Parts: sequence; structure tokens; C-alpha cells
Amino acid sequence: MKKLNVPLGERAYDILIEGGLLGRAGEHCRAVLPRAKKLAVVTDSNVGPLYAARLEESLRAAGFAVAVFTVPAGESSKNIHMLGRLYEDFMAFGLTRTDAVVALGGGVVGDLAGFAAATILRGVDFVQIPTTLLAQVDSSVGGKVAIDLEAGKNLAGAFWQPRLVLMDPDVLDTLTDRIFCDGMAEVLKYGCIRDAAFFDALVSYGGRPGVMAHIEEVLATCCAIKADVVAADERDTGERMILNFGHTFGHAYEKAYHYETYSHGQAVGAGMVMAARVGGAFGLPPAEEAERIRAAVALYDLPTEIPCAVEDYAAAIGLDKKGAGDEITVILLERIGQVRPLRLDKTRVLHLLEGKAY
Amino acid sequence: MKKLNVPLGERAYDILIEGGLLGRAGEHCRAVLPRAKKLAVVTDSNVGPLYAARLEESLRAAGFAVAVFTVPAGESSKNIHMLGRLYEDFMAFGLTRTDAVVALGGGVVGDLAGFAAATILRGVDFVQIPTTLLAQVDSSVGGKVAIDLEAGKNLAGAFWQPRLVLMDPDVLDTLTDRIFCDGMAEVLKYGCIRDAAFFDALVSYGGRPGVMAHIEEVLATCCAIKADVVAADERDTGERMILNFGHTFGHAYEKAYHYETYSHGQAVGAGMVMAARVGGAFGLPPAEEAERIRAAVALYDLPTEIPCAVEDYAAAIGLDKKGAGDEITVILLERIGQVRPLRLDKTRVLHLLEGKAY
Repeated sequence: MKKLNVPLGERAYDILIEGGLLGRAGEHCRAVLPRAKKLAVVTDSNVGPLYAARLEESLRAAGFAVAVFTVPAGESSKNIHMLGRLYEDFMAFGLTRTDAVVALGGGVVGDLAGFAAATILRGVDFVQIPTTLLAQVDSSVGGKVAIDLEAGKNLAGAFWQPRLVLMDPDVLDTLTDRIFCDGMAEVLKYGCIRDAAFFDALVSYGGRPGVMAHIEEVLATCCAIKADVVAADERDTGERMILNFGHTFGHAYEKAYHYETYSHGQAVGAGMVMAARVGGAFGLPPAEEAERIRAAVALYDLPTEIPCAVEDYAAAIGLDKKGAGDEITVILLERIGQVRPLRLDKTRVLHLLEGKAY
Repeated sequence: MKKLNVPLGERAYDILIEGGLLGRAGEHCRAVLPRAKKLAVVTDSNVGPLYAARLEESLRAAGFAVAVFTVPAGESSKNIHMLGRLYEDFMAFGLTRTDAVVALGGGVVGDLAGFAAATILRGVDFVQIPTTLLAQVDSSVGGKVAIDLEAGKNLAGAFWQPRLVLMDPDVLDTLTDRIFCDGMAEVLKYGCIRDAAFFDALVSYGGRPGVMAHIEEVLATCCAIKADVVAADERDTGERMILNFGHTFGHAYEKAYHYETYSHGQAVGAGMVMAARVGGAFGLPPAEEAERIRAAVALYDLPTEIPCAVEDYAAAIGLDKKGAGDEITVILLERIGQVRPLRLDKTRVLHLLEGKAY
């Protein structure tokens, strides 16, 4: 078993990573929740039928009373109506301030259940059991929980750190290749921004089977990098920004296609390639490193290019917003493994995105 | 002007108390919100027509862009649907992470707007301008914000400290006597739990005009006591409990009459008298002190007794809940000005409430 501590003072917590951990969740939850009597498990209609029963059995064996609340799978569940339903369900279950909420699922379940945990009874303990690669390496570290509004994604929420994160790599076996590769975009990102040797290893793994052969190490490396960045900037006011490598352009792609055609990972994959290309104007990174990023993105079946109109790029960098300033910080790479945030003129960034000179 | 600091580390904030402060709100908001461009003012249909224009003018003069959002007056606005509407309204207004929410109103507005501020964009700055006596002495200090659920009051929420609290005693002039006296129950409570001289002064004031002649001092004394208690126990896990003097029985009265017949203050008034009577079995406080409490409650036109069935008392002390334990901590008084929390057997407390021996 790999064990990582996320060092956030009195909100510090452990991430445990091990095959089969789902079936041993009860003992680990009991260790961090000695006084809890009831656990409200939130899952979705995809994950619940596969894994909820196994989790429930383990939690009950550890002496918890358990209720499982299942929301429809998909981003559309991350809204205020579902939040209100969870609130009422938790109260009907008899949840108290010393009890806890457990999220079993991907990013949507983690965000929704986490926000509910942060606010029911003004905040109860929270345990994350992420079941997608993307959720394991990204959304389960950092404490950001949220719902979507009509006005946009993740616009209402909180910072609410879990008491414990349990990652069972075995659950990744039921992911489709597309969902698996979606997570690989973020995995590659950690290599790009912090760890060249990790990036090299990912390339050498050659694909999903190779990654799964080293999965505990892969998860631990990603989480350690994110934990390190988050610990330095818990409330996202500076340093965390380096996690956005590939994300500014990625968001442009997601938004341009209304979050339908391309997944988050696919958009980030193409976004990293674009960030390397844009940075090329400044030698950030040198051309041969940019090509290695492009090849790695392609290796994990992610798109290396997504057609996007100038106005969609402009919206993503905030050029359409009055008073947002003329410059933007773009996260570029000195080389693979080393970020270099650069303040750039927005209009000139657009030139680069169109393939012109800065 | 009176100025109090609530000492909560990096979340410390000032409470300013002065007649006419509403018309000078802009400069004080600017001092604590140097970077904010937009202020979302939340008020209700009673308070808005009286005071929103004056506030808005002052805020605009200080360079803020202002939008006023008015919710229907009354507890029924403190729900998740109204929260969702505020979220969307804030985003349509273009609120950003460096902007702020201002609550102009009583406890309902403060709780609702505060919860919205705590969670929109994962938390923005918040300014409280309480307009009832109850909100000024109670709900604007402590950082508790919440909405009601179908399952009960204040069940979803957060701890979110304001950046500033502005109290303009002039706005109390438009309160009805009933609403004014509602607040006096909490004012008397502060005397009971912490300050015998203050209690004596309140009795000597003889009624609303006397209190208004000393209102800045009254507000400052109450807020200083509450700030002191809250600073010792920000997340309400111990010491804050002494603020519940009179509230356990008060809640029984509110609930027994479905929050309709008696206001919060009326219920707390009768609850304090009952707490003093129950404590009488232990000489907490001595009988003559209990009588002085009863007389003070009557002086401010609050009920000294509210008929209540045994089962309603039982529900209030949690005797109806499985597994909640056999004992309850009742906040009693050593004497006026000095609390004495006592662990008592629930069944025996019921005997006392029925006028029998413990």
C-alpha cells in the first residue's frame, strides 16, 4: 500500500492507494472517524451498481450504519436541486455533526457530495473514494467542491478537505478506454509541470496496460505533486495556477463544443500541445520537447489538435471581458518537468494561437 | 462611534456602531474592501424600501458598482430555491472573487446572504448591516450562516465571518414594539450569562425609550460578550453553548407552536424564566434572582410563561431520540451574570419542567 500525507495543518489527511482497498474501506474509515455512527454514501447510477454493495459491506463490518444515495450519472447531476435532495436525504437518514459523507464515484460525485458535506449541519467529515483515473489524480486532491450553476460550471462551492482519500486501482478496470485516457491527460500534465523522469516513464509504458502495471506508483506520483502544490496554496490564490498547464486552451475547446464533443481530458491533451506550440515563440519549451509532448498525447489516444475559432480562444483568455486587464498569465514550460508562467499580452497570444508571430 | 474587534486571527473583523452609519457605509466598506468593484446588496421587501436607496447611494459614492437583490420578507425566504436564485443573480451581475456581498436586513437576510457569500465562487467577502435589534446583538456576530431545510431550521450552512459589521441604531426606530422587544430577550440574556451590572442597567432603563437612550452602549456590550464567547469557540464545539441560556426551553415553545404563535425572542424570554425556575431545584440561581429575571422579562413585554406539553419539552431536550444519551447539559445560572452548565438526567429534567421534584 502507498500512503501519502497532504500536509494542510489541522486539515491534513492521508491518501491510501492499494488494489482491493474498496473491500477494506471500513477499517480505514473507522480509524479516522472514531466517533461516527452513520455514513451517507453518495454514488451515481454507473458506479453504484458495480461497487456500492462491496463498500457498504465493509463499512457495516466496521460498525457504521450506512445509507447509499444514488444520483444519475453525468455532469447534469451537479446542480442545486440535487444538492437540496441530498440535504433532505441526509437529514431523513438522521445524520449528525459527528457522522460523515462518503463519495464513491468520479469528479461529479466527489464535487457534489463534497459540497453537501461541507454545508450540511455547517460541515461534516468527508471521505473520498474516487473511481475514475481523472478523479483519482485530480479532483480528489485539493479540497475544491462545487456545483454548476446555469451561469457556468463550478460556480458555487467551498474549500472542504476530506478526512481521508481511498484509491483502489482495481476499480479502474471497468472504465472504458476513452474514460481511462481522459485521466491520462492530467497524468501527463504532472510529468510536464514537475517531473521529467515521470514523463519519460509514462511514454515508456506505451499505453493503458503498461500504465496499469505501474498504477500505484503513477497515482502516488500525481497525487504527491498535486498535494505539494495545494499545500503551498490551499485557497488557490497563486501557486496552484501551475496546475492549469494546458487548461486555458483546454477550456476554450470544451466551451466551444458546449462540453459535449470533447471530454475534459481530451481538451486538456490538445490544450497542452497548443500551450507548447504557443510557447515555442519564446523557446518555452524548445521545439523537440514540444514534439515529445505532442507524441505522448497521441500515444494515449488524446487529440493533439482541436479546431477552434479565434473568438472562442478570446473568450477563454478573457479578451471579451471589460476591465479584465490586457495581460494574461500563460503557464508555459521551460522544458518538460519545469514550468515557466509568463505574463503575455492577450491580443498577441491570439496571434500565436492563429499561427502568426507574437 | 463605538468600535469592537472580533479577534478571530486572520478572520478578525470590526463591528462599528453609530447613529447614521448607514449613510456612511461606503467609506467603511471601501476601507476593508480596497480591491472590490461590485457589491451585491441583499435585502428584503420590508427593509429594502426603507433603507436600500440610502445605502446604495453611499456605496456608489465610494466607487462601487451596486446591485440590490430583494427577497420576500420572512423566514420562508431562507431556503435553497432563494439561494439558487441569488447565485444566478450574482453571476448575472458579474460578481468576481474580489467583489463582495452585503446583507441589509434582519437575521433571515443575514443568514441567507451570508450563506450565498460563503459559497458563490467558493466564497467572497461579506459585509453585514443588521437592521433589527435581534440581528444586531445576535445573528451578526459569530459567523453562522444558513438556510432552512424541509427537515428543520438552519440545517445547511457554513461558518463564514464577515469582513465588517455596520450597526446603525437609527434604523431600529422603524421596528414595531413587538420586534424591538423580541431583540430585548437576547439583550437580557447577555446580562444574565455574563454581566450583572448590565442586567441592572437594563432593568433601570424601564423600557424601549430608556434602552434607545443608551443604545450604542447596549449594542456594544452585547456584541462584546458574544464576540468574546465566539472567539473562544469559533466552530461551536463547547463554550458557545453558554449562549443557549433559555434557548433549550425556548426552542420547545417555538416548535410546539410551529414557529407561528411566539417569536424567537418571546420564546427565549419565557425560556429564561423556565431555566431559572428549573435551576431553582439546585439553587441555580437563588429564588430572588429568578424572580428578578422574571420581572425583567415582563418589563420588556415578553411572556414569562408559555404553556407547553411534556412531549414537546421531551422533544426539545432530545428525550425522544434513540441513542442521544440519557443526560443533557442545561445552562443554569449561579447568579445573574454567572453561568453554570449542569449535566442533568433528561427524565428528571422533565419532572422539574412539570413542577415536580428532580
